[in-house]
Amino acid sequence: MPPRPRSTAAPRLAAANGGRGARRRSETRARLVRAARKLMARKGIGATSIQEITDTADVGFGSFYNHFGSKDEIAQAVMEDAVDSFGDAADRLAETIADPAEVLAASVRHAVRRAEADEAWGWFLVRSALARGGGLRRGLGKRLGRDIRIGAQARRFRLDDPPATMLAAGGAILGIIAGRLQGEIGADAPERAAAVVLRLLGVPSREAERIANRPLPSIQ
Amino acid sequence: MPPRPRSTAAPRLAAANGGRGARRRSETRARLVRAARKLMARKGIGATSIQEITDTADVGFGSFYNHFGSKDEIAQAVMEDAVDSFGDAADRLAETIADPAEVLAASVRHAVRRAEADEAWGWFLVRSALARGGGLRRGLGKRLGRDIRIGAQARRFRLDDPPATMLAAGGAILGIIAGRLQGEIGADAPERAAAVVLRLLGVPSREAERIANRPLPSIQ
Repeated sequence: MPPRPRSTAAPRLAAANGGRGARRRSETRARLVRAARKLMARKGIGATSIQEITDTADVGFGSFYNHFGSKDEIAQAVMEDAVDSFGDAADRLAETIADPAEVLAASVRHAVRRAEADEAWGWFLVRSALARGGGLRRGLGKRLGRDIRIGAQARRFRLDDPPATMLAAGGAILGIIAGRLQGEIGADAPERAAAVVLRLLGVPSREAERIANRPLPSIQ
Repeated sequence: MPPRPRSTAAPRLAAANGGRGARRRSETRARLVRAARKLMARKGIGATSIQEITDTADVGFGSFYNHFGSKDEIAQAVMEDAVDSFGDAADRLAETIADPAEVLAASVRHAVRRAEADEAWGWFLVRSALARGGGLRRGLGKRLGRDIRIGAQARRFRLDDPPATMLAAGGAILGIIAGRLQGEIGADAPERAAAVVLRLLGVPSREAERIANRPLPSIQ
């Protein structure tokens, strides 16, 4: 067979495998991330070695580098994963709540609580959400935008300038999380964050306060 | 000359010099930061070497390490310096404006403009303001808090929850700056940021719009 340029051959090869190669590759990656999450949660990122990650994942040491360039890179993936799982859980919770303002308040409250309970997660969120490369358009930023749009369409929110207000709302939540992680605001930060964000979205002050303090359904 | 380890004798020497040593030390540091700023602005951080910085500052190579541990550390100092200078200029401008709401709007507009004009400055601000170690209490965060308090005391702002609203306002400004640097919002971002923040501080919507679009006095 004559050598073919790699770019055109690769997709065809993957197709010939019927996706089996791609599936196995993604399973290996998921196993590595799961192992890294477990180890890093227990020992911290610094004390976790790549060797331990591959041992725990039952994967050859060398194949780590088919998926990640460094330990920092897999730590990043662990965090992205954790933020995505949180977003999925918040979405499932949202399906049980009718009022878009309450959906938003519940998501904000759970995000601030989660950050309090897991500071590494909180700092990762603060660092990554405003980072170069579209942090705002992905993950929780994207979900926040969607929830705000739903509330605006239902006339539950009144936004004078939707794009600027969405960016501001995302930043406001991160500002309060960063403040909470540094002791600038107390243990009622989740409810206060939700109230401030609802007011920013045009919900009258008293009503915002009331919605932000409703019984909070738990999250998976 | 090889880099010398920072000596424990340095503070004692400074004291014995009756402040002369300390003054000279701080002058040398300022010369290094000035030289680094000039070079980094022209060539970028990556292409600037420590040797060039010490040559331009007319300081021995080794004495660089009495002040900074690495090139990244001096780049950090250059940025902190640039943020402080901006804050000082904004303070001088504020002295010429009577209305606290207009002071705040002018500061926000200038900050967003500055970030547009100098992306490295903008990203540094976004990264550092919410970072661990009290970014919110220092620099522009501290100034924003002061300006909000002045407006609240003058009954120009109506804050239901001042601490949470201050954190939210800081985050909101950073969110819009990050959005602007990633093309999520257009060239009128400075005025829109100011309007959103004024609304967050309880200024009625139309009035916020009007204040945010007043002629903007220039900044030094």
